[in-house]
Amino acid sequence: MVVKNKNFSRLSSSYLFSQIEQKKLEFLKRNPDVDLINLGIGDTTYPIPKFICERMAKAALDLGTQEGYSGYGPVAGNAEIRERISSVIYHGKIQPDEVFVSDGSKCDIGRLQTLFGKEVSIAVQDPAYPVYVDGTLLHGAGHSIVTMPCTPENNFFPDLSSLPRTDLIYFCSPNNPTGSAATKEQLTQLVDFAKSNRSVIIFDSAYAGFIQDPELPRSIFEIKGAEEVAIETGSFSKLAGFTGVRLGWTVVPKALRYQDESLIRDAWIRTISTIYNGPSNIAQAGGLAVLEEEGQACVKQLTSQYMSNAKQLLNTFNDRKVYGGVNAPYLWVRCENQDSWTSFQELLEKRHIVSTPGSGFGPSGEGFVRFSAFVKKKQILKIN
Amino acid sequence: MVVKNKNFSRLSSSYLFSQIEQKKLEFLKRNPDVDLINLGIGDTTYPIPKFICERMAKAALDLGTQEGYSGYGPVAGNAEIRERISSVIYHGKIQPDEVFVSDGSKCDIGRLQTLFGKEVSIAVQDPAYPVYVDGTLLHGAGHSIVTMPCTPENNFFPDLSSLPRTDLIYFCSPNNPTGSAATKEQLTQLVDFAKSNRSVIIFDSAYAGFIQDPELPRSIFEIKGAEEVAIETGSFSKLAGFTGVRLGWTVVPKALRYQDESLIRDAWIRTISTIYNGPSNIAQAGGLAVLEEEGQACVKQLTSQYMSNAKQLLNTFNDRKVYGGVNAPYLWVRCENQDSWTSFQELLEKRHIVSTPGSGFGPSGEGFVRFSAFVKKKQILKIN
Repeated sequence: MVVKNKNFSRLSSSYLFSQIEQKKLEFLKRNPDVDLINLGIGDTTYPIPKFICERMAKAALDLGTQEGYSGYGPVAGNAEIRERISSVIYHGKIQPDEVFVSDGSKCDIGRLQTLFGKEVSIAVQDPAYPVYVDGTLLHGAGHSIVTMPCTPENNFFPDLSSLPRTDLIYFCSPNNPTGSAATKEQLTQLVDFAKSNRSVIIFDSAYAGFIQDPELPRSIFEIKGAEEVAIETGSFSKLAGFTGVRLGWTVVPKALRYQDESLIRDAWIRTISTIYNGPSNIAQAGGLAVLEEEGQACVKQLTSQYMSNAKQLLNTFNDRKVYGGVNAPYLWVRCENQDSWTSFQELLEKRHIVSTPGSGFGPSGEGFVRFSAFVKKKQILKIN
Repeated sequence: MVVKNKNFSRLSSSYLFSQIEQKKLEFLKRNPDVDLINLGIGDTTYPIPKFICERMAKAALDLGTQEGYSGYGPVAGNAEIRERISSVIYHGKIQPDEVFVSDGSKCDIGRLQTLFGKEVSIAVQDPAYPVYVDGTLLHGAGHSIVTMPCTPENNFFPDLSSLPRTDLIYFCSPNNPTGSAATKEQLTQLVDFAKSNRSVIIFDSAYAGFIQDPELPRSIFEIKGAEEVAIETGSFSKLAGFTGVRLGWTVVPKALRYQDESLIRDAWIRTISTIYNGPSNIAQAGGLAVLEEEGQACVKQLTSQYMSNAKQLLNTFNDRKVYGGVNAPYLWVRCENQDSWTSFQELLEKRHIVSTPGSGFGPSGEGFVRFSAFVKKKQILKIN
């Protein structure tokens, strides 16, 4: 008979957000009339700007015509969207052929595991989005995982001087779940650290579009020399409400090499052409619209709405110790003498709020809950 | 420094279809005025039926409204499309919660590797679509690969009695590349063989929609007891011209278990929720339309066009030994005293035909080329 991949035993039995969904459903079974306020999973709630939807609709209709039909596209995405990401997001610092468009960051982070062997050592922020560690464990790697505690005490930036060298460093800024955004100085430290250790940073920039402070970097590639040490993933999910449409990208610079001097980019091309088939052409038409001038104005308005929600949440919870919510759509809320799951349950039962228990993101998340600003404002106003 | 995943060295340096693309471009550079007849990669050429496009356009526009907006969908796809696949494709033999909708078969075959350990032994048809073996090798498994030669001599069905037991058996019918379709008796033999060996069949049914003979099974689940031994992947790519839209599915029956008696389906749910994020909502609206009565009539017409191309190709090459093309959109053409790549090059230079060298699909493919019927008829009529 066939044996299960033993790496499953290294994961918890269910995915964090599936556990939360379960608890939510149990509550609703007992309290069917309660209208819950969902500050849990970071799922977008406002419609996609019409300008962008119309482009996707046109792309769909074009597929029904002789002239407009297209089959398989390039596995790395169409040339036009790769160029637009290069110019609009990276201001030409990253070349179009270093941009790989996909069905989303999380999926790319899963596939990125393939680039590295099972012996790879990794460092992750603690707390962190589960896919970095879970993806690593499922791949059979991660026998050596260094956690980088990010807490109020260190201003949510790890003390790099105390860290051992690892092959990979996962880093997310603006951060999910803490809502903190690293400064230029901090990211310069990170790049220098990676350089001196010859490590590769996997930088998750999914929330870059929510940064309000113009001084804060929106990409690791704003830091000098980062192209020699970093891969960056980006996403249209939160930026443009594409959580269900599915579109993201990964930058693998040509300057990034393995120990044997071969290009990591070449191995990435081999990976995606072997086990992937490219992003949806309709989603790409939407992404292209996002990156036009009108699209950029639309998504700026969209992100402002969510950041206005974050501000409202900060006001609502001003009696608590709250972090984040200024340059990121997440608030990181200290529990009042409770552990994360107890606080989660109390918020659910007493205030009808669905949150995310901080401990689900790693040990340093214990004693916190995460609130997502991806909610409708009228819901926030209902919080008692 | 960071070391490359050593499994890359187990793959050829580039993906088969990338190699063909390269040869094509070299030829066009030398002969810029030639209008090539592309019978190479199986890429759809006819527009998607308007009925289906309109549904996708509507879904895109709905995302721009308060009422119609949706964010993350279930990672396994929306309930409605899972139900429709269960009823329309599987006539209720497979339950909706055994159907997992995704961005395509090839991507799912890549992810399916995660279900099994590195020690897994596999059997594959020879010739076969490259992703089965390449995906396995990239995953670090496949130290034991048994090939099942499928040749004109055995009517393209392997002699099972001579095969050793393996954990997995990859099987594609109607077959890419040989264009043969297994009979009910043959698939019954295969299921019985898997049962007696306690193996798992990974059945690729991407071309099921092209079967013309009503006696031939379109799914492994038409065979009694298959739900205890098989996973099946399915695709909207060729059926409905969704190669660029991206939509497929995988069936993991509840009756299918690991040696430890746990459900393979549970491990699949853990896999997709960990490293994947579900198919595009717009593509799903299209898939749902395909599965309605009007959609089914549309795609029947679409597949008929391709099968009419296949017939035309059979007529054009009636001076050669040709197999397939009757219940599958591929023709498997014996080379005239040449190896596959020589024949490929000669077809390209002399007849301006892009084919796929059979040897790219495995050793038993040597001496053949594959012609794809995914072309426009007027192109076939130009063949000299």
